[in-house]
Amino acid sequence: MSNVPEQFTGQAAMNEADGKAYKTQPWSYTPKKWSEDDIDIKVECSGVCGSCLHTISNGWPSPTSYPCIVGHEIIGEVVRVGDNVKHLKLGQRVGVGAQAGSCLECDACKAGLQQHCSGKGGMVGSYQGKWEDGSVSQGGYADYTRVKGQLAVPIPEGLESEPTAPLLCAGVTVYAPLKRHGCGPGKKVGIVGIGGLGHLALQIASAMGAETYALSHSTSKIDDAEKLGVKRDNFIVAKDVKATVEKWSNTFDIILITAPSDNLPLDSLYFKLMAHLGSIILCALPETKLPAFYAHALVGKSLTLAGSLIGGTSEIAELFDLAAKHDIKAWTEARPMSQTTQTLRDMDAGKARYRYVLSNKKQ
Amino acid sequence: MSNVPEQFTGQAAMNEADGKAYKTQPWSYTPKKWSEDDIDIKVECSGVCGSCLHTISNGWPSPTSYPCIVGHEIIGEVVRVGDNVKHLKLGQRVGVGAQAGSCLECDACKAGLQQHCSGKGGMVGSYQGKWEDGSVSQGGYADYTRVKGQLAVPIPEGLESEPTAPLLCAGVTVYAPLKRHGCGPGKKVGIVGIGGLGHLALQIASAMGAETYALSHSTSKIDDAEKLGVKRDNFIVAKDVKATVEKWSNTFDIILITAPSDNLPLDSLYFKLMAHLGSIILCALPETKLPAFYAHALVGKSLTLAGSLIGGTSEIAELFDLAAKHDIKAWTEARPMSQTTQTLRDMDAGKARYRYVLSNKKQ
Repeated sequence: MSNVPEQFTGQAAMNEADGKAYKTQPWSYTPKKWSEDDIDIKVECSGVCGSCLHTISNGWPSPTSYPCIVGHEIIGEVVRVGDNVKHLKLGQRVGVGAQAGSCLECDACKAGLQQHCSGKGGMVGSYQGKWEDGSVSQGGYADYTRVKGQLAVPIPEGLESEPTAPLLCAGVTVYAPLKRHGCGPGKKVGIVGIGGLGHLALQIASAMGAETYALSHSTSKIDDAEKLGVKRDNFIVAKDVKATVEKWSNTFDIILITAPSDNLPLDSLYFKLMAHLGSIILCALPETKLPAFYAHALVGKSLTLAGSLIGGTSEIAELFDLAAKHDIKAWTEARPMSQTTQTLRDMDAGKARYRYVLSNKKQ
Repeated sequence: MSNVPEQFTGQAAMNEADGKAYKTQPWSYTPKKWSEDDIDIKVECSGVCGSCLHTISNGWPSPTSYPCIVGHEIIGEVVRVGDNVKHLKLGQRVGVGAQAGSCLECDACKAGLQQHCSGKGGMVGSYQGKWEDGSVSQGGYADYTRVKGQLAVPIPEGLESEPTAPLLCAGVTVYAPLKRHGCGPGKKVGIVGIGGLGHLALQIASAMGAETYALSHSTSKIDDAEKLGVKRDNFIVAKDVKATVEKWSNTFDIILITAPSDNLPLDSLYFKLMAHLGSIILCALPETKLPAFYAHALVGKSLTLAGSLIGGTSEIAELFDLAAKHDIKAWTEARPMSQTTQTLRDMDAGKARYRYVLSNKKQ
């Protein structure tokens, strides 16, 4: 314990005006009161996720509490372990995703699906969550973080930290529903949008044994898609809806949508592209309601329209195993934590190809 | 073959005006040209399904071709067997559901999921379907019917014909999605609507090991629900949406909707009642679009909204096995075929408790 400071220091937006400009500055805070369910992590790096942008700029329905340190794809070293934490030891390299705490006792928590914790206090987000002592959780753009040990997943030795960090949120967000909806050999899986989530979904679906297809608005990412495992013939420019339907109707067992769109072409495009018994998976959250459709659109081919919320530790651990076996890596650019502001701005400007990681190892 | 007449005779609506009044009369027709994939069935009985009403009264989007004999929950005796039909023999008792034919060769057909046949000609409905010789298929309110042998399922000895006939469409329509979405021990399954489909769904979900709940508009069917396996505490009067949500939010792993409603309370009721990772299954087809909703409604609890279209022979055979083991029986009232008109009118008036079966054994 002697090595862990009493205050942790991160790159914080200090107030709403700062947040809207993604302006961050070093800020020290006292972490939540220690409990023997907790661990302290010395942060090595933390991925930059779309949710970080929304939160820091106060763009979610629930207002952001400032000062605010974001970052929830955290990898680092365990530097303090609570007595109740049996599966981790000092010095171990672990990852923490979008949840830093949960009740640890409900059925969902016991199954490692803490994102659906139904116990007292529910899931505690890795930032802007509410700890049992009333304090607000702070994220991974920092030197240290304190989390419930059960929410930390050991990183297999073969995985490098920087390209692995984005698996903790972006990766598991697409892995969990792909698995749940039967992605595997013999299945045709279309990924809509090649970005932070999409470039991982393509690798993950391939690793699971599916034939992957990329649906994009233009050909600009066709070379990237090929490097991500998509045959050139399976790269679909879906902007021309009519031509796409003509060529690809009744094809896909799964279509996973990672690109939020305010007028999702369900009737005109996606329902038509699905094979019978197929699943359309929504991983993006448009700001408007989905376009209304007839029940017939789902009934005729026995289709499923599914949502999915991040993933829990059991799903993260499975994904790490898959990543180690199949060399799944986020395409990342690592930058020093001191460049948090510029990095958030670049992410907001869509410059990431396809993920930034903020690192304490970089100077 | 000597015993099978060249013309089959059934209770037909002769034109649109007849159909709208459910007026039927005996009418003889020449069945499709015989093929060695076919069998002829001497009809014992045929259930009365909501689809029969829609079709005979010209209420579907695709116009009805008159004269029209409906009925697609058909049980009878095999009286002629094509050379290519290896799994059936003369004298055997078989059932035919909503499909009388399909390509027999595509992946769906080979899997016994003929409702999703993607081959040449596609699925041929048991009435109003189009045979390869150009003729229109006619249904089970008749003395005989000719179907592809592969679409006929042997009836296990222990099952009586009349309470089994409705399993061929109503039953498998609810069984197939219950199975697909994980109905079983430890699961809480709510059935919305106690009618032709609902009264079977309650029995089937119980037989699959789930804890069943009935959601109804009033208490009028509470005694029936109890006889169908629902504990009285699990009978939910869902008309008071607020009280229902207060008591039952985050409860159900599956909600199966059998009652079409033009303003389905997805946001105000069903999404709230679901446990995480749950599935809402649509087996009813409202005439209007579903109310629009936010993707968040599905994402927050990782929910699934699913449609399901009838069932194929593999699913029917599974349901027969389940029915034989667990004594699943449609609640039926059998009437002679000569009372087809009155029976269709009574069905349309909602008088069935919960299914009529027209029988050639009744006089």
